[in-house]
Formats: sequence, structure tokens, C-alpha cells
Amino acid sequence: MNSGKIRVHIENARRKADVYHVTAERWDAACARHRTLAKRLRATTIGWDGDIIEEALKSADAVIGVPARRDDLAGRAPRLRWLHATTAGVDGFLPLDWLPRDVVFTNNRGAHGAKAEQYMRMALTMLHTRMPEMIGNQRAHLWQRLFSPSIAGRTALVVGLGDLGEAAARAARQLGLKVIGVRRTARKSRLADVVHPVTHLDRLLPAADFVVLAVPLTPETKNLLSRERLDLLKPTAGIINIARAPVADYEALAGRLRGGKLAGAVLDVVDPEPLPADSPLWDVPNLVITPHVSCDDSEHYVDISLDLWFENLARFLQGRPLRRRVDPRRGY
Amino acid sequence: MNSGKIRVHIENARRKADVYHVTAERWDAACARHRTLAKRLRATTIGWDGDIIEEALKSADAVIGVPARRDDLAGRAPRLRWLHATTAGVDGFLPLDWLPRDVVFTNNRGAHGAKAEQYMRMALTMLHTRMPEMIGNQRAHLWQRLFSPSIAGRTALVVGLGDLGEAAARAARQLGLKVIGVRRTARKSRLADVVHPVTHLDRLLPAADFVVLAVPLTPETKNLLSRERLDLLKPTAGIINIARAPVADYEALAGRLRGGKLAGAVLDVVDPEPLPADSPLWDVPNLVITPHVSCDDSEHYVDISLDLWFENLARFLQGRPLRRRVDPRRGY
Repeated sequence: MNSGKIRVHIENARRKADVYHVTAERWDAACARHRTLAKRLRATTIGWDGDIIEEALKSADAVIGVPARRDDLAGRAPRLRWLHATTAGVDGFLPLDWLPRDVVFTNNRGAHGAKAEQYMRMALTMLHTRMPEMIGNQRAHLWQRLFSPSIAGRTALVVGLGDLGEAAARAARQLGLKVIGVRRTARKSRLADVVHPVTHLDRLLPAADFVVLAVPLTPETKNLLSRERLDLLKPTAGIINIARAPVADYEALAGRLRGGKLAGAVLDVVDPEPLPADSPLWDVPNLVITPHVSCDDSEHYVDISLDLWFENLARFLQGRPLRRRVDPRRGY
Repeated sequence: MNSGKIRVHIENARRKADVYHVTAERWDAACARHRTLAKRLRATTIGWDGDIIEEALKSADAVIGVPARRDDLAGRAPRLRWLHATTAGVDGFLPLDWLPRDVVFTNNRGAHGAKAEQYMRMALTMLHTRMPEMIGNQRAHLWQRLFSPSIAGRTALVVGLGDLGEAAARAARQLGLKVIGVRRTARKSRLADVVHPVTHLDRLLPAADFVVLAVPLTPETKNLLSRERLDLLKPTAGIINIARAPVADYEALAGRLRGGKLAGAVLDVVDPEPLPADSPLWDVPNLVITPHVSCDDSEHYVDISLDLWFENLARFLQGRPLRRRVDPRRGY
């Protein structure tokens, strides 16, 4: 299908952390790791904040990094067949009405699993060990021996079983937890003891010791953990959100934490990000905020991402369907 | 050797947390789990804060819980042959010059492994993930994305390879760390990649990403991680102490943390405990204090402990050497 050479443009945004920058050095290293495939590429360009994008789009077959300006992409990029987002979450680009019909859109899911698993093990154990309370006590100079039993045998409700949800399920399994998975369908997973469709959520919540939110943000998942659903949780339960903030009602969550009606929460995502200094969320008791760092390996995020991209390049060159395609209808 | 029935006295201290109380209920449950052995016991008494101890000592063959008053134990407890401490650390009873020669003294090591392993996994990952900095940033309402690489491949220096050190080594191994063990001798351990004698400590410290202190407190281990040795560490290193506070120079440690010369520390032990509200330690940056809870299972600490005691009872009845004996010379 693609017998000629492929021209790739890589688009970076300086406002994003360095971890995410596809620099010439990282790109060259990836090409060296995938030498044979890299021979099928020609005249790759790397742009920053749109500096060369209009010229580059004219001839690009594939683009890594979603351009800031997305109107009339078909006209501006007549040869474009493959657009790759360097993030897993593409909620910032929804709805995908700007995507030309004949352009395949892939995302970066799969690059986050290993780091996410480590984070999840930490977050689950922190909640179980009553670390959020201890952090508050330390701040208040209060010595109070808060004991906890073994974490084994507790129940984790993992909402979403994609890359991140599977990492959460692996972490929970390793800790000896029972894993109840939730996704759109009840399709089984070897990582969960049982999987339920999301329509069962209301009756699953009362059994959870931990709720892990790992769904993409779409119109369907917005406010999924609503005020009413938070009321279904045990007061000893803990919540972890590595998805997107609007998936849960943070105002209701904060209220429950302030009222002692929920044991704790570890949130890696807030809205907006960066969280403003005057946000009341910073001081909610038993709430731990991590600054959206749960899943991104500081040394190898781009390396891992480009390895996945090259895996897809092989498929692209063979005319086979790409992996990690974003479904424009579902929005993830 | 002991063909008659054994009379046991159990001594509790109310000032200790409930987790540690050998209540009648917990004792009866243990006897039910060890029915055959329990038949060899007679007239077991449970005392609180010395209320019945003088009378009980007159006839006791074995005592669980070290009496507060320890002078003339041979005279006050003429039949005593076995004294069992319900803690692993016996530094509070040193020197053991009060211990009658013909009384075997055992401690509770072995009861802490499973919980310690969970705590260690959490503490290692917290340090690696820069959680201490994030906690400080949250307190300061500061959004700063602190990324970290995968923890795998880092080096943990585990000082002490007893019950707790082995739990630390297991946790570190599971996280993919290289484990360098340190103990009095260089005797190998299947849980460490390499074991060095403590005399090599100075040349091992510069390689450590994490130092885990898991030694008993004795005259030999006091100030083991001294100011001079702290100076040998990388500024990116993190320290975990689940041993006893005097094993490290906390003043020097606090100084290094304040000066940014050390990445972080998680301390489960301080001196004194409870830590007074006006201690400067509470507010040291990148320092996480947990209130001596790393190793004690809130649901099953006594159950686990009594199971170990009954295991020793079988040996006692058979005249075989007891396990977990404290060596009066070494002090652990």
C-alpha cells in the first residue's frame, strides 16, 4: 500500500513538560532502535509551537503530535493519512469533527502501564495505611498511632479497564486485593476477578474498599462518580483518580472528606491544571494531590511512546489496521 | 523435660495501644487454634499494669510480656524458665543484667514481616515518586509537576537482615531494585543480591538510592548512620527508618533535608515517642513521619504473635531450644 517513503512531521509544544518533548535526540535514538523501519522514512521535520507546521503539513504523510490549529486539515495537509496524539487522553480534542475521514487517529495508550502500576500500588497502600490522615497529623504536630491491617483481601473497584485500568488491576492483584472491573461492556479480563458493565455501578459501589477511576473522559463518563454515587460508598472507602477530574464530582468528594464520610482520596488529576493556588481543594483533609504525574516515566516516556509508534509504522507500511486507534464516535 | 502442665502468666500494659493487648478473647482464640498444645497449660492468668503480677510470678513457669519491675526476678519468680517479650525490639530492656541465667528470653520477631513488607513497598515508592516534595507542595498550594522514572534498577541498601530487613529486601526485590544487604557478618541472604559486613558501610553508602535501617538498637548500632556517613550519600538518596531513632543522627539528617542535600526520608520511629508537639522534626521539608505503625497488623498482631509463641511452646515442652531467643550478649 505504501511503497514509497513516508514523510513524518513531529509537532511539539513548549508549554508541555520536557518529559513529553520529542526532541531530535530522542527521535534519532528511536530511529536507531528501529533501523529497518526508519529507512522507510524521509525528511522528517520537528517543529515547536507551530513554527514550521503549515509548510510541513503540505507534504506530511504522518504527523506525531496534534496541531493546535485543526480547521481545514484536509486542505492544509492533503497527503496526511495518520495523525498520532502523544497523550493517551484525547478529551482535549473532542468532538473529533475536525478529523478528516481518511486520516487514522491513534493515541499513546500503552505507554503508561509500568509507571501507572507503581503509582497505583503506592496510592492503594497509602490509602489503606491511612497515610492521608498521617500527613494531616504531621502537619498538625499530632502523634496518633493509626494502625491498619494487611491490605490483602480488600476489594478494589477498578472503573475502566484500558491501559491504566489494567495497570491498576495488576497492582491491586499483586497486593492481594479482590478486583472488580467495570467497563462499558461486561467483557472479561484476566486481570479482574469479575467484570461488570458500567450500568451495574450503583450496586457495586457499596462493596468497594477502593475505587479507582481509570476511564477516558467522554460525554458518557463525565460525572460518572456523582454526588449520589459517592453517597453509596462505605465511609472507610478510598478513591484514586488517574483519569480526568470531571469524571468525579470533586465538590461532593471534598464535602464527604471534610465531613469524615470518606476515608481518603488520592487525586492525580484536577480541573483546571495547573490547580490555582487559591483552590480550596489543596486543603481538603485526607486528600492527597499529585500533580498529574502518575503514569509518565520521566526518563523514558518518549522512548516508550516512539517504540509504540514504530510498531504501528510497520503496520501502516503493510497496509494493516493500526493499533491504539481512537474511535471518533466513542471519543477514545 | 516438662512433663507436667505449664503455668503461664500474661502481662499487659494499658499505656500500649490496643493492638498489642493479649486479651482473654485473643488468648482463648489462640488456645483454640492450638488445642493440643493448650491442654498442656494450666491456670493461665492475664494481668494489667502489674495488678496481680507478684502473686502470679510465684507460680509461673512462663511469662508473656516483660514485667515493669525486673529486680530480683529469680527470687520473685522461682519457677520461671521462659520469658517472652511481645515486641521485636528489646532495646528498652537493655542491658539484660536483670535476666536470671536459667530463664530463656524470646522476642516477637517474625510477627512483623507481612505488614513491614507492605509498608516498605509504599515508603520506597513514595521516596522514588518524590511524594515528600509533593506533600510539601500541596501544603504550599504549589502545582509543580515532579516526574520520576521507573523505580526498577535503583539500589536499596538494607542495613540489618532480620525479620524487618528481610521484609524490606523482599519489597525492594519486587519493585525490581538491586538489594545490597548489610549485617554484622557477610553471611549470604537469598533476598539480597550481595551481603556485606557492616564494616563496609562507608564504601557502600555512596551507591545507595535508598537506605533502609532495619537493625536492632544496641550499643553497636547507636548512631550507625552518623553525620559523617550521611555526608557519604548522594543528594538524590532517600532514607527509611523502621528500626529505632537513635540508629541515625536525626539532627544531621534534618539539616541535610533542610539544605536540599538529601531527597527525602520516611521515618517510622522517632525519639521520644510520642513525638512532642513542639519538636522541630515535624516540619522538616521532605520528611514524612509515620507514628511507629510500619509493622504491626491492627487486626492480627496478637494472633500472629501468639501463633509464634505456641510454636515455641511445642519446642519448650519437648526440651528443644526455643526460636527467636534474645542473646543477652548481643542484646537482640
